[in-house]
Amino acid sequence: MNLIKTFQTRIENEIQSLFSTSEGPQNLYDPAKYVMLMGGKRIRPVLCLTGCALFNPDSVEDAVSPAVGLEIFHNFTLLHDDLMDKSDMRRNNPTVHKKWNDNIAILSGDAMMVMAYREIAKAPVNVLPSVLEIFSQTAIEVCEGQQFDMDFETCDDVSVIEYLEMIRLKTSVLLGGSIKIGAIIGGADNEEAQILYKFGCNAGISFQLQDDWLDIYGDSSEFGKPIGGDIVCNKKTFLLITALNDLPEKSKKELQKWLQRREFDREEKINAVKNFYEEAKVSKKAQQKMNFYYSDSLKRLSELNRPKEILDELAQFAYNLMIRSK
Amino acid sequence: MNLIKTFQTRIENEIQSLFSTSEGPQNLYDPAKYVMLMGGKRIRPVLCLTGCALFNPDSVEDAVSPAVGLEIFHNFTLLHDDLMDKSDMRRNNPTVHKKWNDNIAILSGDAMMVMAYREIAKAPVNVLPSVLEIFSQTAIEVCEGQQFDMDFETCDDVSVIEYLEMIRLKTSVLLGGSIKIGAIIGGADNEEAQILYKFGCNAGISFQLQDDWLDIYGDSSEFGKPIGGDIVCNKKTFLLITALNDLPEKSKKELQKWLQRREFDREEKINAVKNFYEEAKVSKKAQQKMNFYYSDSLKRLSELNRPKEILDELAQFAYNLMIRSK
Repeated sequence: MNLIKTFQTRIENEIQSLFSTSEGPQNLYDPAKYVMLMGGKRIRPVLCLTGCALFNPDSVEDAVSPAVGLEIFHNFTLLHDDLMDKSDMRRNNPTVHKKWNDNIAILSGDAMMVMAYREIAKAPVNVLPSVLEIFSQTAIEVCEGQQFDMDFETCDDVSVIEYLEMIRLKTSVLLGGSIKIGAIIGGADNEEAQILYKFGCNAGISFQLQDDWLDIYGDSSEFGKPIGGDIVCNKKTFLLITALNDLPEKSKKELQKWLQRREFDREEKINAVKNFYEEAKVSKKAQQKMNFYYSDSLKRLSELNRPKEILDELAQFAYNLMIRSK
Repeated sequence: MNLIKTFQTRIENEIQSLFSTSEGPQNLYDPAKYVMLMGGKRIRPVLCLTGCALFNPDSVEDAVSPAVGLEIFHNFTLLHDDLMDKSDMRRNNPTVHKKWNDNIAILSGDAMMVMAYREIAKAPVNVLPSVLEIFSQTAIEVCEGQQFDMDFETCDDVSVIEYLEMIRLKTSVLLGGSIKIGAIIGGADNEEAQILYKFGCNAGISFQLQDDWLDIYGDSSEFGKPIGGDIVCNKKTFLLITALNDLPEKSKKELQKWLQRREFDREEKINAVKNFYEEAKVSKKAQQKMNFYYSDSLKRLSELNRPKEILDELAQFAYNLMIRSK
């Protein structure tokens, strides 16, 4: 993991220096600094730099600003999503709208989107139009994914296909877009860049399915969240959607009764829903889907005729993100 | 006004065709379409195309997409500002957060910012980095202006200088940036582009001061809003700030009492505050400032050695925006 560790450090330093100065209205810039320096694995910028290194290690420095732009954009989406979802905590810290207020969360998020584009726009001019178009297409798809996610809250018949499309848009395309942008800066042709895009997207879908699975079947101390949170708030996850689709009519009606109940004992609800999940074999089905997308993402890497040691690091990076489910 | 009329029509058609298709989640795209097709004078894109025509009429088509991007950005700021200000109406229609809801207003605004950048990024590649940097700098300053405006609500000692800086950021730099981007696409050098930037900025400050003045001294039927709205809600306008700064101590204290009163008769408050405005001669002072910035903006145009007929149209356009105060 030498290369990826180096990239993580490079990105961390760049973010630190970019957000260390503080001119202009504090209520605008402090929240941006707060979320950017809250930590995180910097997955998107690392993918971007690795995508670049696969094609031309000498141009990695050209990809640093765009990579940071991708991380700023990701954190902007978390900031606005937390406000829309009324989430109180993020990475064990109060969210921006809780620490400041709703208006400050809206406006500092807007400013972060501008900062993101400003960094992306530092890509070398010969690839700038392509890089910007990949980024804008990705960014608009992330908005579409978030809108579908909100729409699903009040929709009673979400299909597995619709759900997979939602998570593809909301979380996966940004992983795909990040590595694709890096590859383009490194000099990849469209076909190679597209293979890496698929790698990133499919790995992303796999991670997101794992996130759903971990809510019930994970180890709460490792997962960092109490078990069953999604069940308590009726979140439309892969597990719930699969159960509603696959259960026999009688069990489905009983599960729906639990979803409609306004007052309940937390543990009782979690256990009841978990029993329906067992009846519909959703854990196994989720793991099968997860493995399908994970294997597919690795298969993409094997299609590329690029330095084996970097491809191996990339595969290892994806593996490390997956092993939380073991 | 032949050229500018042509530009207005060209922009209107482009906006119509860009927002006529409707794919993707309706709750994301319908609000964007709704605000973009609500009308408006398309001042920013017209300035952009005119700035371009001043230097090279043949490249005006290259400026159309960036011009539309500027209009999308402007409408995005109105959408998010209305949400932050809790405004119910905009151009005689319910605002997006009233017609839909707060979350839809946040997210569709975010999507509009992406759409704005996507159109700006269609500028010719030889000027693309400059165009993007002017736009990003402008966009971040607009956010700073909005933050200062919100900060001023709870600040008791805003100076005239701070107020002028706030309106410069919140509304004027986008007018300056619009014409500057057009000029750069038309082939202007930096010095010429900067002269036009100053023209746009100073005209913008003048328009904004006029807006403050019209709240009290305008004809409500022409102005489109009931007279005295700013007084009723204690809005920190040029008029109020000047009065608080220039009134003798005794009158200042009486004015502050009116500002602190929670229950009052609307007309009584308007008349009382208006009397303090007369005592401090704020109407005349506002008109002097307005005229200073307006004259300065016209003076900039005279510094340019460009086709007289286009410069005249530009001056006429600025004049037409000013005459609402007559």
